[in-house]
Amino acid sequence: MSMTSRINNTLNKWMKASGPDSDVVISSRIRLARNLMELSFPNHASDKEARKVIDKVEELLAEKESELDFKLLDLETIPTLEKKVMVEKHLISPEHAEPGQHKGLILTDDESVSIMINEEDHIRIQILFSGLQLEEAWDLGDQVDDYLESKLNFAFNEEYGYLTTCPTNAGTGMRASVMVHLPALNLSNQINDVLRAISQLGLAVRGLYGEGTEALGNIYQISNQVTLGPSEEEIIENLQGVIKQIINQERNARKRLMKENKIELKDRIYRSYAVLKYARKISSKEAMKLLSDVKLGVDLGIIDDVSASIFNELMVLISSPALQRLEEKDLNSSQRDEKRADLIRKRIREK
Amino acid sequence: MSMTSRINNTLNKWMKASGPDSDVVISSRIRLARNLMELSFPNHASDKEARKVIDKVEELLAEKESELDFKLLDLETIPTLEKKVMVEKHLISPEHAEPGQHKGLILTDDESVSIMINEEDHIRIQILFSGLQLEEAWDLGDQVDDYLESKLNFAFNEEYGYLTTCPTNAGTGMRASVMVHLPALNLSNQINDVLRAISQLGLAVRGLYGEGTEALGNIYQISNQVTLGPSEEEIIENLQGVIKQIINQERNARKRLMKENKIELKDRIYRSYAVLKYARKISSKEAMKLLSDVKLGVDLGIIDDVSASIFNELMVLISSPALQRLEEKDLNSSQRDEKRADLIRKRIREK
Repeated sequence: MSMTSRINNTLNKWMKASGPDSDVVISSRIRLARNLMELSFPNHASDKEARKVIDKVEELLAEKESELDFKLLDLETIPTLEKKVMVEKHLISPEHAEPGQHKGLILTDDESVSIMINEEDHIRIQILFSGLQLEEAWDLGDQVDDYLESKLNFAFNEEYGYLTTCPTNAGTGMRASVMVHLPALNLSNQINDVLRAISQLGLAVRGLYGEGTEALGNIYQISNQVTLGPSEEEIIENLQGVIKQIINQERNARKRLMKENKIELKDRIYRSYAVLKYARKISSKEAMKLLSDVKLGVDLGIIDDVSASIFNELMVLISSPALQRLEEKDLNSSQRDEKRADLIRKRIREK
Repeated sequence: MSMTSRINNTLNKWMKASGPDSDVVISSRIRLARNLMELSFPNHASDKEARKVIDKVEELLAEKESELDFKLLDLETIPTLEKKVMVEKHLISPEHAEPGQHKGLILTDDESVSIMINEEDHIRIQILFSGLQLEEAWDLGDQVDDYLESKLNFAFNEEYGYLTTCPTNAGTGMRASVMVHLPALNLSNQINDVLRAISQLGLAVRGLYGEGTEALGNIYQISNQVTLGPSEEEIIENLQGVIKQIINQERNARKRLMKENKIELKDRIYRSYAVLKYARKISSKEAMKLLSDVKLGVDLGIIDDVSASIFNELMVLISSPALQRLEEKDLNSSQRDEKRADLIRKRIREK
């Protein structure tokens, strides 16, 4: 496989930055946790039971009644590096990339639907869309769920709704989350107030790669905490409302920076752009910081010779696993910093 | 006057980086201090006596016997800003730009010869050449001195040689100095050892703009301390020998960096180049630091689309006085940082 096809192979739909409000919203995600009634949940399942989950899903897919083009992958047959790239692409969780009992994955060609088998729950359906498309993602997730439920017997209880391995997921079993890019709120020192307000509204805020990780590149994941009580529609409506407010706050902060600190802002953006265009060695942390500035520059029309999707693409491509996969060999940290700089230089110069 | 002609008007011969060993040596300078026998030295001269120095020089020039095309300027008629630019160009000393008694200046068209009248001494002849040309500069300085001495009666004593206002200049009255660019010795942490060795050899080392100033842009001025005792030729031979050694040390340090830290070196040079090419605001201190990297990149053949003289030119053009003169108006510090970035961006993109 050529480098170009390996790169294209690494990119997917949500990175195209073509969704609504993509100046602030990177992607929208819906995740539904489901378990099969008659089998122990993964944390207590025997090898035989875990195998049975896979068998049941395979049977279902063999019937080919759905319009959805599903293929089941056995994660044990997939190289570790490939799995790590899937984590970077947010197709599977870091936990699902670890070795374990009969882990499986269903993935559509465009990678907008991924279904993890034998992760924390028997079945975790995930829909990943570009920009702010929570309702659209829920519509598709609901369809997939209905299709699976028409064939499988999901653990469900009148009082607690869908039953899940971790009680915090019970009820709807749904986690709706939105990935946002908030550089101007950060630059104008408003970000902590905004994050505090989000927490007080009962939503969770996390850095780029899930819980406990730093907000690399000014990227935050905002998601619902409560899964039991409100309906899926209510959860989405609430989250969507908060996201709309954050979008406004970020856009206002950008306008204010453009009005009151235009030269300083342009200087910062162009310097970051320049370094990405010329550096010969760069850490992923520095690269994310500079790419965040460049995305802001593109979204503000300050930089007009770089494609809007460069940030989304590069934040996946420059991760250590993706780099190693592109180069098709093991790289030490210093070599990765070189290859990362080479890749960024090349991509950012392509108009 | 257009901006381009104002820029060309600011540049002069020594900045063309066309002299020998210009990868390390920026310029060579010879300065001869002379006083007129019959008049008090400037620090004790009456207004009338100071005026008389000017008159005598004017008389001499009126005879037009020399092949040298000399014009006498009255510094009082020259705007302060213009004088500050002359300081940046090393044509006059900072002290000579200050108001004072009948200060004059003789300047050749190519600015390689400048003669300050009523500075610390009655007459200070300065020859400024590009690259390492100490002997050539001394030859011309000697000619100019002979010409002046054929018409004027210089204060001279058999024991102390030429008499000067400050006793440390007596004897030859000569200060020979060489401006060198030593980035690799700095990067490889050898610079302090080298500077210490130079001092121990009885030579003086100073930063870019004379005594007590920082070594901006890795530029050092190395000059003789002793003026009394050795002949002019001996002083020059000694200084030249030391400079040749420094050139070798700097070139060896560059070779070693290219061999052992090539990627790190290229990364540093390209990042500096990138920032200069894109920044919208830059302080003169940062600019000098980055320009030093770019000059190193050009001299090492890493950067090949920038002219070799860009460093010499820009280190004069980006000074605050030169910027204000180019813009033909007063600028505050923040405006200067913007104009400086604009100018650098423009010049560095001109191939």
